[in-house]
Amino acid sequence: MSRLVSHLRFGKLLVLAFCGVALLGCILAFADEGMWTFDNPPRQNLKERYGFTPTPEWLDHIRLSSVRFNDGGSGSFVSPHGLVLTNHHVARGQLQKVSSAQQNYVKDGFYAKTQAEEMKCPDLELNVLVSMENVTDQVLGAVKPGMNNQEALKARKAVTARIESASLQATGLRSDVIPLYRGGEYWLYRYKKYTDMRLVFAPEQQAAFFGGDPDNFTFPRHDIDMALFRVYENGQPVESANYLKWNARGPAEGNLVFVSGHPGSTNRTYTATQLEYWRDHYYPLRIKLAKDRVEALRSYSARGPEQARQAEGAIWGLMNALKAWTGEYEGLLDEALMAKKQKEESEFRALVAGKPNWEKEYGGAWDAIAQATSKRREMLKATQFRVLRGSRMAGIALMIVQYVAEIKKPDGVRLDNFHDSQLESLRFQLFSPAPVYPKMEEWMLTTGLKGSEAELGPNDPFIQAVLKGRAPAEVAKEAIGGTKLADPAFRKSLVEGGEAAVAASTDTLIVLARQFDPVDRQTIKWMEDNVESVETPAEEKIGRARFAVYGKSEYPDATFTLRLSYGAAKGFPMNGTNAPYKTTLYGLYDRALSFDLKSPYDLPARFMERKNAVDLATPLNFVSTCDIIGGNSGSPVIDRDGQLVGLIFDGNIESLVGRFVYDDTTNRAVAVHAAVMIEVLRKLYDAGALADELVQK
Amino acid sequence: MSRLVSHLRFGKLLVLAFCGVALLGCILAFADEGMWTFDNPPRQNLKERYGFTPTPEWLDHIRLSSVRFNDGGSGSFVSPHGLVLTNHHVARGQLQKVSSAQQNYVKDGFYAKTQAEEMKCPDLELNVLVSMENVTDQVLGAVKPGMNNQEALKARKAVTARIESASLQATGLRSDVIPLYRGGEYWLYRYKKYTDMRLVFAPEQQAAFFGGDPDNFTFPRHDIDMALFRVYENGQPVESANYLKWNARGPAEGNLVFVSGHPGSTNRTYTATQLEYWRDHYYPLRIKLAKDRVEALRSYSARGPEQARQAEGAIWGLMNALKAWTGEYEGLLDEALMAKKQKEESEFRALVAGKPNWEKEYGGAWDAIAQATSKRREMLKATQFRVLRGSRMAGIALMIVQYVAEIKKPDGVRLDNFHDSQLESLRFQLFSPAPVYPKMEEWMLTTGLKGSEAELGPNDPFIQAVLKGRAPAEVAKEAIGGTKLADPAFRKSLVEGGEAAVAASTDTLIVLARQFDPVDRQTIKWMEDNVESVETPAEEKIGRARFAVYGKSEYPDATFTLRLSYGAAKGFPMNGTNAPYKTTLYGLYDRALSFDLKSPYDLPARFMERKNAVDLATPLNFVSTCDIIGGNSGSPVIDRDGQLVGLIFDGNIESLVGRFVYDDTTNRAVAVHAAVMIEVLRKLYDAGALADELVQK
Repeated sequence: MSRLVSHLRFGKLLVLAFCGVALLGCILAFADEGMWTFDNPPRQNLKERYGFTPTPEWLDHIRLSSVRFNDGGSGSFVSPHGLVLTNHHVARGQLQKVSSAQQNYVKDGFYAKTQAEEMKCPDLELNVLVSMENVTDQVLGAVKPGMNNQEALKARKAVTARIESASLQATGLRSDVIPLYRGGEYWLYRYKKYTDMRLVFAPEQQAAFFGGDPDNFTFPRHDIDMALFRVYENGQPVESANYLKWNARGPAEGNLVFVSGHPGSTNRTYTATQLEYWRDHYYPLRIKLAKDRVEALRSYSARGPEQARQAEGAIWGLMNALKAWTGEYEGLLDEALMAKKQKEESEFRALVAGKPNWEKEYGGAWDAIAQATSKRREMLKATQFRVLRGSRMAGIALMIVQYVAEIKKPDGVRLDNFHDSQLESLRFQLFSPAPVYPKMEEWMLTTGLKGSEAELGPNDPFIQAVLKGRAPAEVAKEAIGGTKLADPAFRKSLVEGGEAAVAASTDTLIVLARQFDPVDRQTIKWMEDNVESVETPAEEKIGRARFAVYGKSEYPDATFTLRLSYGAAKGFPMNGTNAPYKTTLYGLYDRALSFDLKSPYDLPARFMERKNAVDLATPLNFVSTCDIIGGNSGSPVIDRDGQLVGLIFDGNIESLVGRFVYDDTTNRAVAVHAAVMIEVLRKLYDAGALADELVQK
Repeated sequence: MSRLVSHLRFGKLLVLAFCGVALLGCILAFADEGMWTFDNPPRQNLKERYGFTPTPEWLDHIRLSSVRFNDGGSGSFVSPHGLVLTNHHVARGQLQKVSSAQQNYVKDGFYAKTQAEEMKCPDLELNVLVSMENVTDQVLGAVKPGMNNQEALKARKAVTARIESASLQATGLRSDVIPLYRGGEYWLYRYKKYTDMRLVFAPEQQAAFFGGDPDNFTFPRHDIDMALFRVYENGQPVESANYLKWNARGPAEGNLVFVSGHPGSTNRTYTATQLEYWRDHYYPLRIKLAKDRVEALRSYSARGPEQARQAEGAIWGLMNALKAWTGEYEGLLDEALMAKKQKEESEFRALVAGKPNWEKEYGGAWDAIAQATSKRREMLKATQFRVLRGSRMAGIALMIVQYVAEIKKPDGVRLDNFHDSQLESLRFQLFSPAPVYPKMEEWMLTTGLKGSEAELGPNDPFIQAVLKGRAPAEVAKEAIGGTKLADPAFRKSLVEGGEAAVAASTDTLIVLARQFDPVDRQTIKWMEDNVESVETPAEEKIGRARFAVYGKSEYPDATFTLRLSYGAAKGFPMNGTNAPYKTTLYGLYDRALSFDLKSPYDLPARFMERKNAVDLATPLNFVSTCDIIGGNSGSPVIDRDGQLVGLIFDGNIESLVGRFVYDDTTNRAVAVHAAVMIEVLRKLYDAGALADELVQK
């Protein structure tokens, strides 16, 4: 099954990287709750609450207009000529990769006035979901009576790889087997893949991320967090009728809107034991770790402006993740929330226990999960600290060492990430020409190794394997200083040379990765034998128990696959009063001047110089009750006519607890309004041609 | 001692009327905490935190420029020609009283273009504090060894009346004996009194109270909550050098500012038993009662637009009080706050217990207060429901019945409110020509009596005395329908006729008041004997114990007497981000349009018509850490040069718990910025001459 989620970098509403195993499930849906699969939209809720019935054509059009940014976000086609709209903060990875000490596109933005100026992205892959097929029977059927847990896990992995590989060969499409409803169902999702993406427009970071870390994950908000790419195939822009028409009027308060995007992960059907583990062990460790990394990066930044530029993206991602995790963690610390969760679980288990055949089939699942969670906790430090953290090149080195070994094996027994169906995307990342910053990598690898040594102690096999009694700084300096892996051609030569070339390589980082590889495999094996093989069948049982008890009127937990959320444009109670459902450009200038234009409330020069040119009453950002989470960044907000009225870029602070529970009184999705994008393109960025392409009928 | 506080009506930062007994005290001051008396400003804090030392001249000038609005607010002289600045919501009582079915000054505002147009207020009294004298020894000295509690209380009241009366005769000034530090000290405050007040300017209510009840007690905020009166004496404007010069630049973030005003009451040194009583009994009852009254008033409003106009002020006051009380009540429901209070009390009591002579002198105070509080609880329903609620004329009737009896007694034994020193102010209220609305009075008296009957039962002496077995509606209809008390001349004739005239009167409301009078006296007597006589000496002991333990480095709880607060203009953490220290006119238009101009976010016509005339960058409202509470409405915000930079009109939602505890991380005082008042007077209200008078050097 796909492990895409675990590759992802942190992000605002980007997928947060610590999803751990794919833990999926289904939830009773109330109010405007739910991230629904396109095969099972919430027809009844939509009809009853909003008098709307989506046609198959409506659903297909939305689905085929939606794109996944594989580095952790979402987007949509917004012109017949391949324009794709997403957030500046989804684009920022690529913006940074095409930047240099001389030209900072993250900070200054970018606009290609002509097609010739559109700028190719080094390693951006987009996916469009073109078909969905239920393969539950095949996957579950592979597990035969009498198999023990380990054998069953192997059988599942083998059949999954076989399905994916066969689909790839038959269709040429990227093919992922996705567990939904905690494994209550398995689906084969086929994607059209795009890898020739070109940058067309991004505003200054200060326009996109006005208010910075303080305003992040809050509303009222004042961000023009947009970016436009154009998708090419065979050197030409993609022409297609599957794009969203632009409705600059946007929604009135109370109007029905939809979000079509790729929520990364939710944990709404976690058992009480799992929630407690996250609360008591996982969050505290991850938060501390992230804070340490921010500190290390800031120390590197302090060396000079170019170092600051290099580190800025990573700091941004960590600060963003920290704010999200803190909100989620505080949710778990709320005793009322935990009591609610425990009550729901008790009721569910009582219903299962009420029927002897249910109890026999599913009753043991909770204890099995508790057992697996206890094992997971045992290995928590190992999984977090037996890593070469902070160096992209070290990650590439390990990938090369494992790649050459894995591809020689039958597909079904390979490590995850190395299955046939994943190889093309993997090689796209592996040979990316994006720049590396050796001094930053050395510094971060050093601090990462120091952290691991302090946490694991000198006798841990990882420490012994990679440090061999030497100091972290010495090891990192040697490994980064002596490697040629910054050069994609060198990586390619190693991969093409296969196991022999990698075994013979004296490249310092390859040597380090070779030392690390057996320890990594040992950790993976231990987790498979003690956690995954117990947890996966138990999760499946809970998923099937929910079907048995509640029927299929629920939506599955998020899996970074395409989902449809719905809701109304609507304010919410906030801090003694009401937050409105939208803001205007008046509000942007108010907030900037309210802080005397001090960072992070300064405005790009053009905003001050041309403030009399814009219509200040233009709606800027708006909120809706649509149910979203990290990964939804860049998702289109769509009205009932299927037109684009906004661009998701964030949730409010009250939505962070949405990882565990959705509450429509305060949970809001925050979007850039369709009107302001056109207004600023025309009046501030002299990009009238681009605006015309967006609003054409 | 003065019982002014208990006469006061509800108000935004007006004094809230349920202060109960005057419970005073002193508190250890940290950070920018404290409402300091002018005899004991926080010199050390000011020097250490802000490098500022107030001179005696600076203090005198601020004090003599500050005024008390006796109906519950504060203000300041702002021109050499008697202009006094306060809030629209402080002025709204007078605005309503000069309004009619044909002309609604509350809603539409008012501007006197010439002196001749300035409009006399029916019953507004202003006080300026001209001298302060410590009379602790005289008051405490009146209590002789061997007196029981009741005798001691009588002696205290007698000496207080004597001091006040003597001072009045000697100086002609209003003279109030004020307990400070819970009776640790008693002070004689002498006031210059003004009763010829004329309305000069008020904006539309929607400009003053933009955002209505939802935005009330919150920040960021967008209200031009100002009004200007001119003070007359002998038919001419008062000319004086004691006024605040205008500084339209206002404070920069972090600048030191002061608030000079009249905080009504705080309960920061309440004992744990008292806090529990408020939490468990007092708040729940008062909140329910206020909600019932709002419902009754809304039902009256629904009869038509003129009825709505009549009831609107009372509804506003109750909604305002409800929001404040709810915030305060939630503070007490917060277990962390209660734990903090209990810990402080334990530490204080342990220090007292540590010295045998302290323990002997003060140790019994807490138990005494607990005993008095338990008695207070016994009488809670009686004190709340043995009243003719909802009818101003019924209040006047009772006042007349008691007045003619009390003034025949020696001053020292009269009911509170009827001492010589209070009579002039009392008669000013009694003979007020302000309009009464008989139909509203009848409806509200009916619902009030119904509530009393339901709560007290048919056998309660109050119910028996006023209803005599009849229905509330019948009693109210007869009493209000048959009275001539709406006519001030009739009231005067009764008062002048004395006991005989009142006893012989067949006026239906006088008859009802005569029936009620003995019950009222009985309640007052019971409270004196069982509560006040125990509580007052116990409070004094706690006050003196604090002096013994902590020295006089503290400030007394608020008493609706002049206080100086200080702090910095400063934002605060809010809902996941930061609130700025100020807003601008951009923000007003943003918030209005964010709600699509729907009430309460609609704007007066001139704001839309002239929006291109104003400088949108003009600062609108700002916050500071100054420690304030209800009664501070209309207080000037003053810079270190003694110039006016703002006008207090509210606290943020986080400040409501300030009744019990001050926390400078989030507690903020909200003010109208000096700049915006000038900007709108000139650009929106064509009141350039008035603006000139304010900013003249």
